[in-house]
Amino acid sequence: MQTLFVELGERRYPIFIGHQLDGSKLLNQYISSQQVMIVSNTTVADLYLDHYLQQFQAMGKTIATCILPDGEKYKDFQHLHLIFDALLEAGFNRDCTVIALGGGVIGDMAGYAAASFQRGVKFVQIPTTLLSQVDSSVGGKTGINHPLGKNMIGAFKQPEAVLADMAVLDTLPDRELSAGLAEVIKYALLGDLEFLTWLELNMAKLLDRDREALAEAVYRCCAHKAHIVAADEMEKGDRALLNLGHTYGHAIESYMGYGTWLHGEAVAAGMVMAASLSAQLGWIDSKDVVRVKEILSQANLPIASPRIPVDEFLAYMAHDKKVLNGQLRLVLLKGLGQAVMSKDFEQSQLIQSIQDNLLAE
Amino acid sequence: MQTLFVELGERRYPIFIGHQLDGSKLLNQYISSQQVMIVSNTTVADLYLDHYLQQFQAMGKTIATCILPDGEKYKDFQHLHLIFDALLEAGFNRDCTVIALGGGVIGDMAGYAAASFQRGVKFVQIPTTLLSQVDSSVGGKTGINHPLGKNMIGAFKQPEAVLADMAVLDTLPDRELSAGLAEVIKYALLGDLEFLTWLELNMAKLLDRDREALAEAVYRCCAHKAHIVAADEMEKGDRALLNLGHTYGHAIESYMGYGTWLHGEAVAAGMVMAASLSAQLGWIDSKDVVRVKEILSQANLPIASPRIPVDEFLAYMAHDKKVLNGQLRLVLLKGLGQAVMSKDFEQSQLIQSIQDNLLAE
Repeated sequence: MQTLFVELGERRYPIFIGHQLDGSKLLNQYISSQQVMIVSNTTVADLYLDHYLQQFQAMGKTIATCILPDGEKYKDFQHLHLIFDALLEAGFNRDCTVIALGGGVIGDMAGYAAASFQRGVKFVQIPTTLLSQVDSSVGGKTGINHPLGKNMIGAFKQPEAVLADMAVLDTLPDRELSAGLAEVIKYALLGDLEFLTWLELNMAKLLDRDREALAEAVYRCCAHKAHIVAADEMEKGDRALLNLGHTYGHAIESYMGYGTWLHGEAVAAGMVMAASLSAQLGWIDSKDVVRVKEILSQANLPIASPRIPVDEFLAYMAHDKKVLNGQLRLVLLKGLGQAVMSKDFEQSQLIQSIQDNLLAE
Repeated sequence: MQTLFVELGERRYPIFIGHQLDGSKLLNQYISSQQVMIVSNTTVADLYLDHYLQQFQAMGKTIATCILPDGEKYKDFQHLHLIFDALLEAGFNRDCTVIALGGGVIGDMAGYAAASFQRGVKFVQIPTTLLSQVDSSVGGKTGINHPLGKNMIGAFKQPEAVLADMAVLDTLPDRELSAGLAEVIKYALLGDLEFLTWLELNMAKLLDRDREALAEAVYRCCAHKAHIVAADEMEKGDRALLNLGHTYGHAIESYMGYGTWLHGEAVAAGMVMAASLSAQLGWIDSKDVVRVKEILSQANLPIASPRIPVDEFLAYMAHDKKVLNGQLRLVLLKGLGQAVMSKDFEQSQLIQSIQDNLLAE
């Protein structure tokens, strides 16, 4: 097992990475409250709720649960409210801990509920998808979607601890494993060319769910993200680079309806578009774009977007949080492994980057 | 005009207190964003929206508005969502400012919306009731109600600035003026005996809406609260003393249905109960309890609760945020002008403090 710390001063917290981890031993010192609310979804609860209930019961906690339906389309106000209902019906007070047991949707919702319940209670993450292990469980971004935009409502809420157990990835559907690999590949593209080479060599192992390879990939991604988050918690600067492919990707997700395309799938197509725009600007070579497409294909990810009308695509992109004073900014590549935030592109180039990467009819 | 600063380091902010204040001049340096969303309610908007729209237009801002129905019963998720709808429909991004123009309900909702929209945008308060000028606009507590409890969902969100203009109190209904005076009296009872004497001498002027007297009272209350908030922003300690009368009061408000009794009215009856329990404990004299009742009566406030069954009263109190590990803690008086947080009372004494202060049948 490896332990990483996200260095945020008083709010410093550990990420435990390994397989078949002993949660009650690792988390005990990080859950000081008696009352523990486990938030999960129906799919994950069927597989792992009993296991974790036993672990928390072994810690002597008073436990309540809130099991939500599974899917990004439930990441809304109505379902967030169910968590508050459960907390209040259990009689929980401001000295309680909310535990997210699930993927990114559960982590985002449980985290925002923990940030908001009684103006803030404690929070622990047990991410059960590769995507949430490498991305959403680290860094404290929480929230819900709004019909007019993804993650538009939320809070920065750091957990007390994160438990990333590779054993739970055994039951992850192939499609979700690939979606998680999109974010893994993202870390390589935005800041670590050596890791890209490692991924090209180890992709077969990762797809085969080799626990050691997965733990290594998760560790590298979390270390990268922890470093960025510690320097820029509130995303005033470099943290925004983690959104490589995301502005395009969010447009795809929004247009298709949340959950139709998985987040990682949309980000994969978005990263191809970002690479494509970067190549138009002369910042990377066309062979770099090919390399981006190849590693994504190797991970069984899409490398083109559904045929969304370009004006609608642009309208969805304009809702993105990275729009500043009406000016769209994108994370682009100055080179492979070197992302930058930029608004130095023409509208025509932006349009080209979309049109060139739509699925053939 | 007087200016007070709430000393919170990087988030230090001013409270401007006076009458017929020039908002565009005072607020200009505190609103750096181009996009400004004014949140108000139908009552306040009819009276003051045009006035403030002109002031912000004079600052050259892009302005949108969200006008909610008036009343505590609308301080819920559905109406909070209307603010997000308005922000997204206006195309506002994370570099916008939300301005609360209204009383405590509007301040709490707009503040929580500002805390949550895009995980946090800027916030300015223009409180239009005495209650919100002395209490909710200072200190950053924001939130909404849940059917099972008041203010159960929210965030700590400090504003960029607060503009407290006594001129807007001219149109405040008498009942709301009195409700505001309940919180003014609270500051005297919990920490400033000299201010209690001042209030006993000046209550007639305050009820007559003498602007100088009102500004003096608001200044004293805000100075007191700013001092406490600077020392204990997250309410880990002394800030909780500001809740004198509130645990009882919340039970009254919840039982009666939010908005039936005004918050200040419920707190007034709650302060009598807290004084009554303090007297049972021998911490204050029965003549101190009489003095508490007299100053509240002078301000035209209730000094007894509706006839709520005691077991239901206790059940609502048990939902309060100050319950720690199942143990109810209350703000009580060790002396007039000296509040303490305590759990050193018997259940029978608690019951007595309620029963002794119910309205006669």
